[in-house]
Amino acid sequence: MLFRSLRSAVQATASIVAVGGLMAILAAPGTARADEGMWTFDNFPIQTVNQRYGTRLDQAWLDRVRNASVRIQGCSASFVSPDGLILTNWHCVVGCAQELSSPQEDLVKNGFLSATREEERRCPGQTAEVLTQIVDVTDRVLAAGEGLEGAAFNAARSAEINKIQTEACAGDAKFSCQVISFYRGGKYALYKFRKYDDVRLVFAPENQAAFFGGDPDNFNFPRYALDAGFLRAYEDGKPVDVGNNYLRWNANAPAEGDVTFVSGNPGTTQRLLTMSQLERLRDQQLPITLIQNSELRGRLLEYSLTGDEAKRVSFDPVFGLENSFKVYYGQQGALTDPAFMAKKREEENELRARVAADPALVQRIGDPWADLERVQSTARDLYLPFRQLEQSAGGGSQLYAYARSIVRAAKNTNLTAEQRARMSAAISAETPIYADMEEIRMRYWLSKTREYLTVDNAQVKALLGRESPEALADRLISGTKLADPAFRAQALTMTTEQLAAADPLLAFVLANDDAAAAIGARWNAEVNAPTARAAEKVAQARFAVYGTNLYPDATFSLRLSYGQVQGWSYRGVTVPPFTYMGGLYERATGSEPFNAAQAFIDNEARVNKETVYDFTSTNDIIGGNSGSPVINANGEVIGAAFDGNIHSLGGSFGYDGELNRTVSVSTAAITEALRNIYPSPRILQELGVDRPQRRTRR
Amino acid sequence: MLFRSLRSAVQATASIVAVGGLMAILAAPGTARADEGMWTFDNFPIQTVNQRYGTRLDQAWLDRVRNASVRIQGCSASFVSPDGLILTNWHCVVGCAQELSSPQEDLVKNGFLSATREEERRCPGQTAEVLTQIVDVTDRVLAAGEGLEGAAFNAARSAEINKIQTEACAGDAKFSCQVISFYRGGKYALYKFRKYDDVRLVFAPENQAAFFGGDPDNFNFPRYALDAGFLRAYEDGKPVDVGNNYLRWNANAPAEGDVTFVSGNPGTTQRLLTMSQLERLRDQQLPITLIQNSELRGRLLEYSLTGDEAKRVSFDPVFGLENSFKVYYGQQGALTDPAFMAKKREEENELRARVAADPALVQRIGDPWADLERVQSTARDLYLPFRQLEQSAGGGSQLYAYARSIVRAAKNTNLTAEQRARMSAAISAETPIYADMEEIRMRYWLSKTREYLTVDNAQVKALLGRESPEALADRLISGTKLADPAFRAQALTMTTEQLAAADPLLAFVLANDDAAAAIGARWNAEVNAPTARAAEKVAQARFAVYGTNLYPDATFSLRLSYGQVQGWSYRGVTVPPFTYMGGLYERATGSEPFNAAQAFIDNEARVNKETVYDFTSTNDIIGGNSGSPVINANGEVIGAAFDGNIHSLGGSFGYDGELNRTVSVSTAAITEALRNIYPSPRILQELGVDRPQRRTRR
Repeated sequence: MLFRSLRSAVQATASIVAVGGLMAILAAPGTARADEGMWTFDNFPIQTVNQRYGTRLDQAWLDRVRNASVRIQGCSASFVSPDGLILTNWHCVVGCAQELSSPQEDLVKNGFLSATREEERRCPGQTAEVLTQIVDVTDRVLAAGEGLEGAAFNAARSAEINKIQTEACAGDAKFSCQVISFYRGGKYALYKFRKYDDVRLVFAPENQAAFFGGDPDNFNFPRYALDAGFLRAYEDGKPVDVGNNYLRWNANAPAEGDVTFVSGNPGTTQRLLTMSQLERLRDQQLPITLIQNSELRGRLLEYSLTGDEAKRVSFDPVFGLENSFKVYYGQQGALTDPAFMAKKREEENELRARVAADPALVQRIGDPWADLERVQSTARDLYLPFRQLEQSAGGGSQLYAYARSIVRAAKNTNLTAEQRARMSAAISAETPIYADMEEIRMRYWLSKTREYLTVDNAQVKALLGRESPEALADRLISGTKLADPAFRAQALTMTTEQLAAADPLLAFVLANDDAAAAIGARWNAEVNAPTARAAEKVAQARFAVYGTNLYPDATFSLRLSYGQVQGWSYRGVTVPPFTYMGGLYERATGSEPFNAAQAFIDNEARVNKETVYDFTSTNDIIGGNSGSPVINANGEVIGAAFDGNIHSLGGSFGYDGELNRTVSVSTAAITEALRNIYPSPRILQELGVDRPQRRTRR
Repeated sequence: MLFRSLRSAVQATASIVAVGGLMAILAAPGTARADEGMWTFDNFPIQTVNQRYGTRLDQAWLDRVRNASVRIQGCSASFVSPDGLILTNWHCVVGCAQELSSPQEDLVKNGFLSATREEERRCPGQTAEVLTQIVDVTDRVLAAGEGLEGAAFNAARSAEINKIQTEACAGDAKFSCQVISFYRGGKYALYKFRKYDDVRLVFAPENQAAFFGGDPDNFNFPRYALDAGFLRAYEDGKPVDVGNNYLRWNANAPAEGDVTFVSGNPGTTQRLLTMSQLERLRDQQLPITLIQNSELRGRLLEYSLTGDEAKRVSFDPVFGLENSFKVYYGQQGALTDPAFMAKKREEENELRARVAADPALVQRIGDPWADLERVQSTARDLYLPFRQLEQSAGGGSQLYAYARSIVRAAKNTNLTAEQRARMSAAISAETPIYADMEEIRMRYWLSKTREYLTVDNAQVKALLGRESPEALADRLISGTKLADPAFRAQALTMTTEQLAAADPLLAFVLANDDAAAAIGARWNAEVNAPTARAAEKVAQARFAVYGTNLYPDATFSLRLSYGQVQGWSYRGVTVPPFTYMGGLYERATGSEPFNAAQAFIDNEARVNKETVYDFTSTNDIIGGNSGSPVINANGEVIGAAFDGNIHSLGGSFGYDGELNRTVSVSTAAITEALRNIYPSPRILQELGVDRPQRRTRR
């Protein structure tokens, strides 16, 4: 699935704010090939597309699509009615469904369909953002860091970026403002968003309908998944009137070869990392992440088998973990493929040779590849403590995350009253806490930290004292009051001394926070800052050699990709681009995760089995694009992108037009489901659907 | 810990028999550096050692040590009394202790000390072997494969090797005969062993004494572990009289700089794999092994927390898994270290350049490096199905292993009556089966197989049918009768038709065995056979360029390494070579795994805290050496090797005399324990210990 976990989304945002992105990457050499590219709306290759596909896109078309495109946490979405109805993926709303569930009412397993608007249920903490303005702020950002290094460089950049953001939004809570790095330091832009804070769940199918085939089918095709869900944006207690800024619903499935556009927020690509950066990823970061995630996966899977409630509360975390595991595994697959790495090396050698042949350019940029190689050596030394003590501290425990936020707020004397108020609102939102899961994560994190940093490490000794990871996790989680939203809000008003006395988990985090912050600061100063510096120079080299007709790497900012409906062939096997709803009944075995959803079973006789279910297209997308509208040449929505095929997993490092495919659920299938499986005349009516002319199996 | 899991020991033996070893490796270029080398007893560098260390070793010294050296399953050991008393590590007898335990009597947790010989308890399946004869059979083995390729090559080699073995042992059950590959195809030798089938447990300390610090301290130093245990070889119901063939017990700890010898069975080293072989290990085999083992680890750890009995039965499996995880992780660390790989590449380039400069040599051997590169490409394609369906099928389930042995015996019409009788005896040995653990392993294996081979793979479909991995594992494990030794013996007499009807697990294995055997056969023919061929040529190249004064790679055959008691320095930190028993009490926190054993707590006042506990030396050893006697220049035993330091984990690929260290428990500490912690006058008497002159902290 192509979402970004909230966790990594938060981290990415933080690092963008801090230093303009962690890693330095630019677009591919030369112009983009085939349907490659995640283009910004201010640099979309209209001419190229109109020529290649015979379309008649213009600026008005682009504006309409942009205004209907919605960014939600970790995912993408679109308005599909004048009343703020939002189409996205089921797997982008399942977190909400899980939070609204209880042992008595399982909205993940049973789905959720609101019969009236009054029954639409607010998703805790959920926001929706629409991009309204793009302003180039490159000069201001670059000027801020000039002549500085390390922590001073980070601080100056960060301050300037905060200033730009604050000025642009001018305290208006209806907007959010974000300075985003493009071309990894080649360009910075202010993105201003219209922001909605009240977003409600309208429809989520049963998990077995949306996630049929589960982890085994994830990132594979043929696929039979109704991975769709609806939200609605509210303001002042009323549905938002978006006027004309929504995509018209086209309930007809596309034909093979039809042109398709995907508008959404690809999270991160790393397509032009230098070889030394790729090698560190391959040799250290990805292996450790895969290994540690696997152990947590094993712990959670074993726990999930202990009972119905354990199964229920672990569903979403296991799903997220397995999804990101597969993404990382696919990335590792690309980086350990000798042919792929040879091609990467060849590209780098070509660029470096062309730079070397231009003395003026060398004079201007020096040797950023050598700089980055030195940075990797530092990164190899710092990565484990950075990861264990700061980046992944807490192992995903929600309570730990609360504690850290509260502790850092108490230590930060620069927070404004407004910032504190925002934090307080966020931190005191009602959200279910599952003590078993929290404890598993904490003991996993503590034991891995001891394992990777070793017993005699000073920070490990400070973390554990004389306790075992298991006993400490138990004491902290069973003793903390942080599961109570009121206590969290109260803690946010305390001094550090009060925190230490008030709660064992707060005391624990506080006691270890200086060390954690210190390694974070070192990572920023010794890895992020010099990487950003060198990355700018690589960017300049690339612009000088290949020109500026390039798309930037993904940064969870709005992009448009183009392509067409198409299957693929691999090792002599051809995979057609469509599945049909009848295929689900053939694939279902009755055993999880290949059991059909109850409503599909109950309504089998009614379902038009010839309806196109899921389809593949050549669009170039990546995690974060989940929920993105798939749009035809007329600007109508014809599907929601939810996945890539298995070959797309290397897409973080490069796009292969022969093999990379986007996987989407068709509006035809969603319409069929709303008519005959999860009947909702009111949604169909709101979508303006007449009985469609269905495309049938040819 | 430096043992080899029985699983991998079995596999290695199988592959040695089949094709003379999986991978082709030779000794280091030029002569061995520093204290490098795992030397065979027929090629030990006596002169070098006598010169370097001023010792007076001679052939009689070597013979005495060889005759006292004992090979046991996965480990090494030595006779230390005329009555067949065997010193080895606790972690080499813990499997026996676990098998002899029950919910009522936990010999792992509480230890085992037999008060009399009559109380010594037979370890199921345990054997002890003493090397009595070495015969060079290179010519016979090489001649057998001449002119053949693939499966035919394997078959011819295998037949000849079996013939040599059968001839040499001539049906005498008191001996075992094994043709072992040395220099990875450069030489083959027949090793004839005196074999003892009745081996009994004499002493095992509490696990908290032996394994103090648990996995976190494993492969680290300073260390406080009484990792020692005693067995005794019996024959005809009486202790074996080994005459003079035992090592005299020296209860005095060595001094820093003292020369040390380690005699034992290092399992596998891969020091001179070609770069393409190392890269496949780095890119595919090690990552997948680490990732999958981590998930199993998580599953078992979570299970172990569900109750006392779960903790008890999972102790040894978790220990073995974590130990091998650390070994693989260390190997991966070496292969992902840019400096290490650069050095490897340089060595290979030098050898290849020298070969290229010698046209006659090129004429003779061709380009085996290119051959091996092609083999790696095949291996990359075949590895996942080979691993999932054959090599690691069953995920470590004991019942699955029984089922496969029985099915293959039924399918193999060539088995002699004698072979069947041996199998029957082995398979019907009483051994506890823990259904929960079996089920965890089976569902882990089934779900990983589906994940890695994908849902639509024909073999995966055949394995699962319409069942989920969880349901299938439950049905097979709860339905099988294979936990009953009598049923296993009976099943071994059945036809395949009878097997299919008799038991669900047998039916399941039988139904999928042709596919499993087929991928195994492909791996042997397309990977092992051409690897063996090319390896011989690399070996010839190395002999031609560097001469024959080389030690062979480890093949779980008896070796002698030399060195001296020494600590090490790394990144400015110096680690001294000794710990003292008093240090245990300082390190103990009271929390697992850093809680002191009960007997250590109870007897603290009696213990001489100045006694040297564990010590490090420069000996070059590897997994399989666990339990090896550490011997002084006089041929007396002064310790039992049980571990390497963290730097030794890359030792599979190369020895670094500055950093690689062997970790041993001193005879001084064992003596102190037998006197004041686990008092056993009878063992002390048998060891001939008078009150020793103890070396104290200087």
